[in-house]
Amino acid sequence: MNIVIIGGVASGAKAAAKVKRLLPHASVKIYTDDTHVSYSSCGLPYYIQGNFSDYTALLVRSPEEFKSSGIDVFLNSKVKKIIPDKKKILISGDELVCYDKLIIATGAHPIRPNITGIDDFENIFTVRRIEDGIKIRNKMLKSKKAVIIGAGYIGIELLEAFSRNNIYVHVFEKSTQIMPVIDAEMSEIVKKRLNSIENKNFELHTDTIVNEFIGANGVLTGVRTSDGKEYDCEMAVVCAGVKPNIELAQDAGIEIGETGSIKVNKLMRTSIENIFACGDCAEKTHIVSGKKVWIPLGSTANKEGRCAAMNAAGVYCEFEGVLGSMVTRCLNTTIAMTGLTEREAEEIGFKPVSVIVNKYDKVAYMPDTGEIALKVVADKITGLLLGAQAVGSIGADKRVNTVTSGLIGHLTVEEFSNNDLTYSPAYSPTIDPLLNAMQILCNKTARSC
Amino acid sequence: MNIVIIGGVASGAKAAAKVKRLLPHASVKIYTDDTHVSYSSCGLPYYIQGNFSDYTALLVRSPEEFKSSGIDVFLNSKVKKIIPDKKKILISGDELVCYDKLIIATGAHPIRPNITGIDDFENIFTVRRIEDGIKIRNKMLKSKKAVIIGAGYIGIELLEAFSRNNIYVHVFEKSTQIMPVIDAEMSEIVKKRLNSIENKNFELHTDTIVNEFIGANGVLTGVRTSDGKEYDCEMAVVCAGVKPNIELAQDAGIEIGETGSIKVNKLMRTSIENIFACGDCAEKTHIVSGKKVWIPLGSTANKEGRCAAMNAAGVYCEFEGVLGSMVTRCLNTTIAMTGLTEREAEEIGFKPVSVIVNKYDKVAYMPDTGEIALKVVADKITGLLLGAQAVGSIGADKRVNTVTSGLIGHLTVEEFSNNDLTYSPAYSPTIDPLLNAMQILCNKTARSC
Repeated sequence: MNIVIIGGVASGAKAAAKVKRLLPHASVKIYTDDTHVSYSSCGLPYYIQGNFSDYTALLVRSPEEFKSSGIDVFLNSKVKKIIPDKKKILISGDELVCYDKLIIATGAHPIRPNITGIDDFENIFTVRRIEDGIKIRNKMLKSKKAVIIGAGYIGIELLEAFSRNNIYVHVFEKSTQIMPVIDAEMSEIVKKRLNSIENKNFELHTDTIVNEFIGANGVLTGVRTSDGKEYDCEMAVVCAGVKPNIELAQDAGIEIGETGSIKVNKLMRTSIENIFACGDCAEKTHIVSGKKVWIPLGSTANKEGRCAAMNAAGVYCEFEGVLGSMVTRCLNTTIAMTGLTEREAEEIGFKPVSVIVNKYDKVAYMPDTGEIALKVVADKITGLLLGAQAVGSIGADKRVNTVTSGLIGHLTVEEFSNNDLTYSPAYSPTIDPLLNAMQILCNKTARSC
Repeated sequence: MNIVIIGGVASGAKAAAKVKRLLPHASVKIYTDDTHVSYSSCGLPYYIQGNFSDYTALLVRSPEEFKSSGIDVFLNSKVKKIIPDKKKILISGDELVCYDKLIIATGAHPIRPNITGIDDFENIFTVRRIEDGIKIRNKMLKSKKAVIIGAGYIGIELLEAFSRNNIYVHVFEKSTQIMPVIDAEMSEIVKKRLNSIENKNFELHTDTIVNEFIGANGVLTGVRTSDGKEYDCEMAVVCAGVKPNIELAQDAGIEIGETGSIKVNKLMRTSIENIFACGDCAEKTHIVSGKKVWIPLGSTANKEGRCAAMNAAGVYCEFEGVLGSMVTRCLNTTIAMTGLTEREAEEIGFKPVSVIVNKYDKVAYMPDTGEIALKVVADKITGLLLGAQAVGSIGADKRVNTVTSGLIGHLTVEEFSNNDLTYSPAYSPTIDPLLNAMQILCNKTARSC
């Protein structure tokens, strides 16, 4: 039995380890064009920040460790073609490698927007691989001013990293809000919290497009925006989103889904027999809406890698899909969400109703009490809970996690508002902000509690 | 319309406020033998510790504030009798007060175990009311050695309070484990964490009964235990549990449930028409087992008070019951649970299977990463999730809250292990300890994932 995996990082590396445990006598090979096989890409902003000193902390498993469990890793090894008819892949050096089961875990790559000068200067970075992190950190330590393009979660995590290293940062976001993934009112709360930081060393520019990188002799010295202003900087990081790596699959005739990522079923099978896909290159099903989505995240990649490996090994496993759950941090603020935003719910055809509450995260008399803003969304007709967003102190994310299980169980707001959450003054108010929000939301649905 | 409420604190005070909002023209009266009407009893250990300097922070609403919203509060006013036939209550001074709807919120009282000398000395305390907190704090500030009898959650919260005020404490627990409410292996983890604290100024004695208080001239100087040892102390706090205040209801012919607390239906109605009961005096239904239980907690009291008030006002409301969710803190350790312990599940007739995992609460390379031990319990036959317990860093409670929604939705372990929890290295490992535990538990149930 030959199992071949294209790509490492989260899903590919997980799939390899799992399949080898299930089929100890199988040949398992990972081909990757990367310089490292298994690492935490999500940890790069924290490495850049200096939360730990050595990038090797990000490495989960080395090629040598894989080798010792019988898995062969081929680094810097580009797969040029998948030939499904022959059950072979063509790798660099024009070598053909046979597979019985093939797992595609090619991941995603950062978008490089069409900005004048983007290819003309050093010191314009994207964040994806270990080398990117090392280069950005090295340059940051020698810089005083930086520009970040894009205020999604990687953008704002880098803002934290730069700010804490005393680099003055301008963040430019083309949409009207930072963190475009959450609803506008919640994004506004994030912005207010960030802008309220005393002596802040950053500026947030929404609704602003960077038109041009400027500099001389290949060295970046600033950016020019659509409103004609110029901003000095010694480095820029482009955090304008990612795109799935689907070329190899597409070229082999594997079906691409409506989201532009590789179409898979619940067993992580692609449209071609014996070929699976998982992680950032694969399409996902949203559990709440039932729609196809492409939300590339490390935690999902891990689960999908496990599931693809099980089915490749002949052990039945279904991956039900995602809720779009995410959390990120920027300085004093935690931002988390799960399920559908109100905007998404409306687009899909629900009749969403929502509530935002602003509350203390513990009983007010306790020390270190923080604030938390929670938005909960439900369908007016059925009372079905659709999603939640939280902005505030540490612990905001865990309130969102309490909602994830409610979404999995298809709870109504009424059912959720009967939830018996743990209570102690050191951990939450008597009525947790989440229950408070649900009780108010209850009155807005047709089935009021 | 005359609404009379017996008792304040959490459920009585909540019921009064809610019923007045629903029926602005009704007469609403609260009779309580307490000196304060509406306060956070759960905050007393933190007041004693000195987390805030003024006990008035614990007071939620004063009689004057109630008065201004049209609610009459009678403090220090003992209700002597309920006369259901005449729809009257007899209060101290032999005055009769009419009611159309009566809400009993008489709460619970601390158990004073039959220990030799318990009534002979000053400086033996129980914790329930504001005055108790003030007396304990005042005495603590003048003491060097204290004894706590009972290592339930109030016992260990006081241990934290005393320890942080540099009082040397002996804690005696008659059962074989501290925190008898959780499973033995989890209790063992709590004990290890507490005993590992450097230069700790306390000793935990399980399986040890205090037989006698010793002293002279009404002043306590120590305790004697069943193994014949003596321990010096200048004060003792008895945290031996609580009992529901049911005498008044029982005397009026109201049915008492199998748990020894006042029997109520989902509408918080007692067996006698127009009389409701809520809070610590009332029996509860356990949502997971369907059994009657008596788990007195402030968060439940609040919800029950709201529900009793709604039904008293003629607005239909059901209270579904409790999960037995709780959280407490002792020094470096958070302890939380929801649902059934393995022991309870077995007693009730489930075939429980369980898993304990010990994991980091964030990705290991992040700063301030803590440890968390999680136990998850499920029924082997159906795969139904039954409960969870957590011991560890801050955040342990929130993992338990993620399970509460799963219990409300009657999820199987398999369904829960598909949960899409939020992930970022600063907040959890790629696969959260909770999902990790569920995935392992899955393999122990008949329906393996």
